[in-house]
Amino acid sequence: MPKTRKRILTGDRPTGSLHLGHYVGSLKNRVKLQDEYESYIIIADVQALTTHWEKGESLYQSVMQIASDYLAAGLDPNKVTIFIQSMIPEIHELTMYFSMFTSVNVLRHNPTIKTEAAQHGFSEITYGFLGYPVSQAADITIFKADLVPVGEDQIPHIEFARKIVRRFNELYAPVLVEPQAMVGEVPRLIGLDGQAKMSKSLNNAIYLCDSPEEVNKKVWNAVTDPARIHKNDPGHPEVCTVFAYHQIFNPQEVSAIEIDCRQGNIGCVACKKNLAHKINQLLAPMHERRQKYSPDDIKDILREGTLRAHAVAKETMEEVREAMKIAYFK
Amino acid sequence: MPKTRKRILTGDRPTGSLHLGHYVGSLKNRVKLQDEYESYIIIADVQALTTHWEKGESLYQSVMQIASDYLAAGLDPNKVTIFIQSMIPEIHELTMYFSMFTSVNVLRHNPTIKTEAAQHGFSEITYGFLGYPVSQAADITIFKADLVPVGEDQIPHIEFARKIVRRFNELYAPVLVEPQAMVGEVPRLIGLDGQAKMSKSLNNAIYLCDSPEEVNKKVWNAVTDPARIHKNDPGHPEVCTVFAYHQIFNPQEVSAIEIDCRQGNIGCVACKKNLAHKINQLLAPMHERRQKYSPDDIKDILREGTLRAHAVAKETMEEVREAMKIAYFK
Ligand code: SF4
Ligand code: SF4
Repeated sequence: MPKTRKRILTGDRPTGSLHLGHYVGSLKNRVKLQDEYESYIIIADVQALTTHWEKGESLYQSVMQIASDYLAAGLDPNKVTIFIQSMIPEIHELTMYFSMFTSVNVLRHNPTIKTEAAQHGFSEITYGFLGYPVSQAADITIFKADLVPVGEDQIPHIEFARKIVRRFNELYAPVLVEPQAMVGEVPRLIGLDGQAKMSKSLNNAIYLCDSPEEVNKKVWNAVTDPARIHKNDPGHPEVCTVFAYHQIFNPQEVSAIEIDCRQGNIGCVACKKNLAHKINQLLAPMHERRQKYSPDDIKDILREGTLRAHAVAKETMEEVREAMKIAYFK
Repeated sequence: MPKTRKRILTGDRPTGSLHLGHYVGSLKNRVKLQDEYESYIIIADVQALTTHWEKGESLYQSVMQIASDYLAAGLDPNKVTIFIQSMIPEIHELTMYFSMFTSVNVLRHNPTIKTEAAQHGFSEITYGFLGYPVSQAADITIFKADLVPVGEDQIPHIEFARKIVRRFNELYAPVLVEPQAMVGEVPRLIGLDGQAKMSKSLNNAIYLCDSPEEVNKKVWNAVTDPARIHKNDPGHPEVCTVFAYHQIFNPQEVSAIEIDCRQGNIGCVACKKNLAHKINQLLAPMHERRQKYSPDDIKDILREGTLRAHAVAKETMEEVREAMKIAYFK
């Protein structure tokens, strides 16, 4: 399959519903990119197993949920290829071949592994986790992705993948594509409780599937400036979660709100109602899109995307086998 | 496919022609076992890559060579399934899933890894090599082998595979079979030069494909008792390579030769001629069998064996996926 446009690979581990943090941090960007690039979106269920291997039971639900979130957010199955990692066994095959010339030493110095090893001890981490950068390199390269949209912190992983590709191409034949990091601003959304990160495990998230009532309730309970007791007390927007969200979800009004808050001209109740309204406006078309897809539709979309992705992976693996001179029966 | 007989998995890395050391150490036994067990014989080309990853070029020749040696030695393609590891990608898939719950720690304590790490430093070994016991466990278990014929030194690997199976069956569902080590006497053949091991790299081997002339020449040059200068000098068979071979390839005459040698009743020339004759008698039917198979026949046998093995592997992986609840589209 000749590529007409540059190819992108992105994706997520299916570990639960996507929230506004995901939307702001990557999903919104992916929706924008789908018109410009040939986009492959990997639902990394095997990678989810590297940290949640005991939770096989819920993986199916998580995969369906994340696919539903993708569609709701505006990813168009006619434009992007959404697929399930575990159904592309060629990824494991390529991982195996990459692992033949990747030293344990290089993996130990990978930042993610280092962090984990510092916490739990190097020997306690699993073999699968240690090899996570290798299999990530296989995820990217088996689809010959040209670009991988990432935040700054992910650059070492892409660098690692580039090194592996160079090594492979040198050792065997130049069949793989060196991916490039597409480094963009990745805004990080704080949690409703004011913690640095919105996250499922901190229970401080607004999900893309939250109903207007849930959003209202969550915003209502969001942490604001604790110094404001009365409606007319001057506020400090810089310490207020609600204000941080206005900056992202209500850019038109944010300057006015800042002034009004500092001068004690608006109350937190009204300010929160305004934010909740803005968030609900953002989510409304998502709810609408979500309704268009039945579980069977989602399954079909995943099946078709996985078939398409599988065809590409098979083609790459054939080239890899020929390059390695192990295409025996050709 | 229901098993009617117990299933065995054995095999070799395709790293060159098989020699008498292989025959005595395992091949002879496999030929005997093929009538009693359902035998799967893996040509472990991917494992060969873990130590010879730069030598892809010659793998195809090595695979064809080893298959030809198998057939020559008497393995009957109507009884055994000879297949190529790299053509069963499900092995890599299962390896990946096993690696999710295998700690680096356990692998570091594997005797093979320990030896290698002691020589080259732990960090210098490749990720693929570190995981070699994991992929070996996948080789065995994907075929639901009941028994693995091994020497004493291989028992830890089988123990490791058993542990992985128990862990998998506990975590998910009891679909995998715990393999048992079939520990037999594994006679080790010394080299023609008297070194402890017959081996290609030491250039002290008699190959199964050696012609009678080559055998005669090699035996002629074999190291004997250096104290025997004249035909009637009393000899010391315990230091003589030729005598060690008589013990294995000429058991009927070995007691007589021992006495005659010690008493100086036979000369080394006659003794060597006798041995060469015995070895040629052993190899003659192998040469005959080898001639029956053209390269195309060998290819067909490998293709068919690989197809059969692949069918079994696919079936096991389906059960594995269902056990792990990642059989999404069923
Ligand atoms: S008025 Fe708005 S910005 Fe100011 S503290 Fe209240 S909620 Fe926060
Ligand atoms: S007579 Fe035979 S056994 Fe004795 S030293 Fe010579 S070769 Fe060896």
